[in-house]
Formats: sequence, structure tokens, C-alpha cells
Amino acid sequence: MNYMNLAIEQAIKTEKDIPVGAVVVKDGEVIASAHNTKELDNDITSHAEIIAIRKASKILNNWRLTGCDIYVTLEPCPMCGWAILQSGIKNLYFGSYDSNYGAFTSNCDLRKISNNKTNVYGGIQEEECNRILIDFFKTIR
Amino acid sequence: MNYMNLAIEQAIKTEKDIPVGAVVVKDGEVIASAHNTKELDNDITSHAEIIAIRKASKILNNWRLTGCDIYVTLEPCPMCGWAILQSGIKNLYFGSYDSNYGAFTSNCDLRKISNNKTNVYGGIQEEECNRILIDFFKTIR
Repeated sequence: MNYMNLAIEQAIKTEKDIPVGAVVVKDGEVIASAHNTKELDNDITSHAEIIAIRKASKILNNWRLTGCDIYVTLEPCPMCGWAILQSGIKNLYFGSYDSNYGAFTSNCDLRKISNNKTNVYGGIQEEECNRILIDFFKTIR
Repeated sequence: MNYMNLAIEQAIKTEKDIPVGAVVVKDGEVIASAHNTKELDNDITSHAEIIAIRKASKILNNWRLTGCDIYVTLEPCPMCGWAILQSGIKNLYFGSYDSNYGAFTSNCDLRKISNNKTNVYGGIQEEECNRILIDFFKTIR
């Protein structure tokens, strides 16, 4: 299964917010998926990754997401990046790079100060993920 | 009113978790307070600051916490630090420095990559805040 496609499906569902989608996968099964609802919920913490991580923890009844992977359409910000690292997620796959707020490449690399070393793979289906963001910013201008 | 004392009161309430407390203040009034419940709730995002910020946003019906201050007994981690910066909180006052995961001094300074420039004041009632952590780590050893 192409999990990034599922994250993209989530991103497209976003209404008032910047379209970002995330899915958490364990043993080949999608256990949580979410999209950005910061504006919709009036909650700074309602990024796709945070919501997906909280759902996954509820399902596994454990804050440790050992053996889980996360697919996100946009490079996580430091808030989400730290939650991903601290939850012990094994692999992070993201689509678009965020040159403003990305927490793993352009601006800073949170792995440098974390004991948990999540593997990070950026630029997955990058063009497709970029397109979703470009289209969104066009409509709000 | 001494708001750090209220944050300390919250920290002491913590049960299974590392004792950390936070209060959000607006116009001299405490609008939200919380303590760390990560282990209790099995939720990596249930740090004192995140819970207090979410409560404050609910009360103000706005993710923007403009004009608010936050008092925390421990230097925020990158997850909480980014939530504080992005919410537009005006002033952050924290007690103990976190040389492992602190997001404003020892390890990294998230303000360098943020447009929102929260004022940060560390070491407020530091000895008292340190004592709470030292006592906690003694009991679990």
C-alpha cells in the first residue's frame, strides 16, 4: 500500500487550514490518520501529526509508538518533530520540505538533541505534496 | 500574585509523571493551569504547557494567545517551546533549566527560527523548582 497517498488524501480533506495530512502505520496497518485542524478547532496543537500520534497512542494504549512509522505530506515543525522523536516512531517519511519551519533539514535538526533517533526520509512524492500547498495558497490570495 | 507559586502548586499535583506545572495568565488573571500527565494519560503530548495552552485557547476561543504569559516550573522542550512561540504568548517565565531538552538555552534556541518572539526569562524560583525534580527522581530510584 502507498501510505503517502493516504496522507495526501488526508491533506486534501483539510478545510480552513493549511492542507497537511498524516498517517501512522504499524505492521503494515494504518492505525491513525488526521489532517490539520488548527484553525477549525482553534487549537495551536491540532497539527495533523499531533492528532495522528494521539490517536495512535490511544489505540495502542501506549505513548511509545515503537515500531510505528509516520507519513506526513509536509516536513514537521519543531512541535510535531519533537513529538515524533519522543514517541519513538521508527521512520518518518515526509513530502514537501518546509524551508521556514522544518525541524529536520533546512532550519534545525532536532535529532541532534534527541536520544531517540527516528530515521527521516524527506521529499517523498514531493511534487504532488508541493502542488497541494501551492493550490491552497493560490485560493487564499 | 506570585504566578510561579501557582505553577509549583500544579507541579506538586503530578502523580506518575515528572513533576512539571504550568499556568497561563492574561490581564493578571490565571485562565488555565495544568500539570504533566504524559504517563497518566499515555499521551506524549500531555505536557503541562500543552494542556494549559489548549485550555487557554478554549477559554479565549482563539489559538492566538496574544497578551498572555506562561509560567512553567521547567524549561520547555521543543514541542512545548514551539507551541508557546506559535501561539504568540508574550512572556515565558520558567524555573529550572533543562540541560537535556530545553528549547531556549542550553541545547537550541527555537526563537532563532520563529517569527513570533516570545520574551523568555529562565531561572525564576530556580532552587525551589529544582528541589521538586530532585525529590521526584530520588523517589523513583
